[in-house]
Amino acid sequence: MDFQKYYESRKKLVNAFLEKRMEKKGISNVDDAMKYSLLAGGKRLRPILLMATAEAVGANGYDYLPMACGLEMIHTYSLIHDDLPCMDNDDYRRGRLTNHKVYGEGMAVLAGDGLLTLAFEVMLEQRNVKPSVLVEVVHETAMCAGNFGMVGGQALDLDAENRQITARELKTLHEGKTGAMFIAAVRGGAHLAGASDEQLLALTRFAELIGLAFQIQDDILDVVSTEEELGKPIGSDEKNHKSTYVTLFGLDGAKQMAEDTMKEALACLDMFGEKAEPLRQIAGMMCHRRN
Amino acid sequence: MDFQKYYESRKKLVNAFLEKRMEKKGISNVDDAMKYSLLAGGKRLRPILLMATAEAVGANGYDYLPMACGLEMIHTYSLIHDDLPCMDNDDYRRGRLTNHKVYGEGMAVLAGDGLLTLAFEVMLEQRNVKPSVLVEVVHETAMCAGNFGMVGGQALDLDAENRQITARELKTLHEGKTGAMFIAAVRGGAHLAGASDEQLLALTRFAELIGLAFQIQDDILDVVSTEEELGKPIGSDEKNHKSTYVTLFGLDGAKQMAEDTMKEALACLDMFGEKAEPLRQIAGMMCHRRN
Repeated sequence: MDFQKYYESRKKLVNAFLEKRMEKKGISNVDDAMKYSLLAGGKRLRPILLMATAEAVGANGYDYLPMACGLEMIHTYSLIHDDLPCMDNDDYRRGRLTNHKVYGEGMAVLAGDGLLTLAFEVMLEQRNVKPSVLVEVVHETAMCAGNFGMVGGQALDLDAENRQITARELKTLHEGKTGAMFIAAVRGGAHLAGASDEQLLALTRFAELIGLAFQIQDDILDVVSTEEELGKPIGSDEKNHKSTYVTLFGLDGAKQMAEDTMKEALACLDMFGEKAEPLRQIAGMMCHRRN
Repeated sequence: MDFQKYYESRKKLVNAFLEKRMEKKGISNVDDAMKYSLLAGGKRLRPILLMATAEAVGANGYDYLPMACGLEMIHTYSLIHDDLPCMDNDDYRRGRLTNHKVYGEGMAVLAGDGLLTLAFEVMLEQRNVKPSVLVEVVHETAMCAGNFGMVGGQALDLDAENRQITARELKTLHEGKTGAMFIAAVRGGAHLAGASDEQLLALTRFAELIGLAFQIQDDILDVVSTEEELGKPIGSDEKNHKSTYVTLFGLDGAKQMAEDTMKEALACLDMFGEKAEPLRQIAGMMCHRRN
């Protein structure tokens, strides 16, 4: 398969859906701040992951654009809040000024709140699926996004600044901060597409492993990438005295760990045969990305 | 009816549900920050409004505690974010230190995010209702809470600081900031309880009007109340050069407006007879409250 072409076509679908959905105006200019970050491009990894998983199970990925794009809104809100001065205090994101640098801190807080809320609105607009299944999938997504998942991971991250944390604490932190939303994407896509229990189990393990590989690569890139390539300052982990897979295991150790994790992840997809090819390629991309 | 007793019993149900639900732990100490604000008491107006509306339509209000308490979580998150230094910058709320004064700004942002996300998780745990109805009610709640409603109103409020706004702009601002969530409560309760189209129409108008009356009273209290009674500094609107119903229409004008609005609201409930008595009393309480 031509993965490059596949990925670009899926990205276009996601971008078109998001642009169209944001044409529906709210009552204030918080819409502009929301659009500034949501429509800034990005890899659209989570929605494409959801669609590719649905395809692995035998459905059409583009039937689930509302659910898929809801995940991107959740991801985007988390970046906006994460960049705030009281959090990571970043001025640039994807090579552009961060939301609060353009709209002010108060508006950036609200833009994040608005996107998180809109995510649920949009996800609940998903059709082609039994309402009872939709309730279950959106409920699980909320669990993955909240204090049990992403928000919990962010809070652990905030607490971990300026102190050494153990490898175990680091794992819990990342399982929440980045892993949980990959699980929401993969399990959401599988569930919507009517996966069997056996399929769901294998895909859940797959999601856990690519989440881990993604985070290890993130830590590696913060050391080996350039500011131009990454679109944000490098070396920020060291600057903020953060524990990472690189500081804990060394650069070579982290690289080996990423490779091993990815191999294990791919093995989970064996039962899906040809139809999981996009998922395999996405996993590879996540592990070998340069930004 | 003994309204005092009715209200206290409903408040107990809400508090017990919230306490019980917060026993389910996340992965970090953002839970503590969430609980600090969520379990701090308060009037529990929105959940009780939802339950009383369901009762007016002939159902049992306590059957809908998950939906009702989700609204309280949304309300609480909005207070936490609203108190942040980059928003209203308040040190006290309900007579206690605000969330960020206790847990720091970063954690307060996350506590709000966590509560907003948990609200959807909890609402989607509502049983005793068809999944298709639940999808519709939670979807409408998201609309009321987001850039079309509460978040939009907050953004207008942020933009309105330090400049004069028109009576029309003030109305849109408050319809979003406070009105929308009263509409979510009343329409949510009505919808869950299986209200007819005619009932839904009357209750929607009722909700719009009590939202307006509530806001007018809010503006009046900022002038006539004491800091002790209100649990927060008075005169903050004047300090922040905010346009209010009092600055626009004078104290007497605002008081008259509140009374007229309340009368019109009560007329909407005529068709519900005796079963709407709690709703009537709640409306009166909202208009005559001292804090």
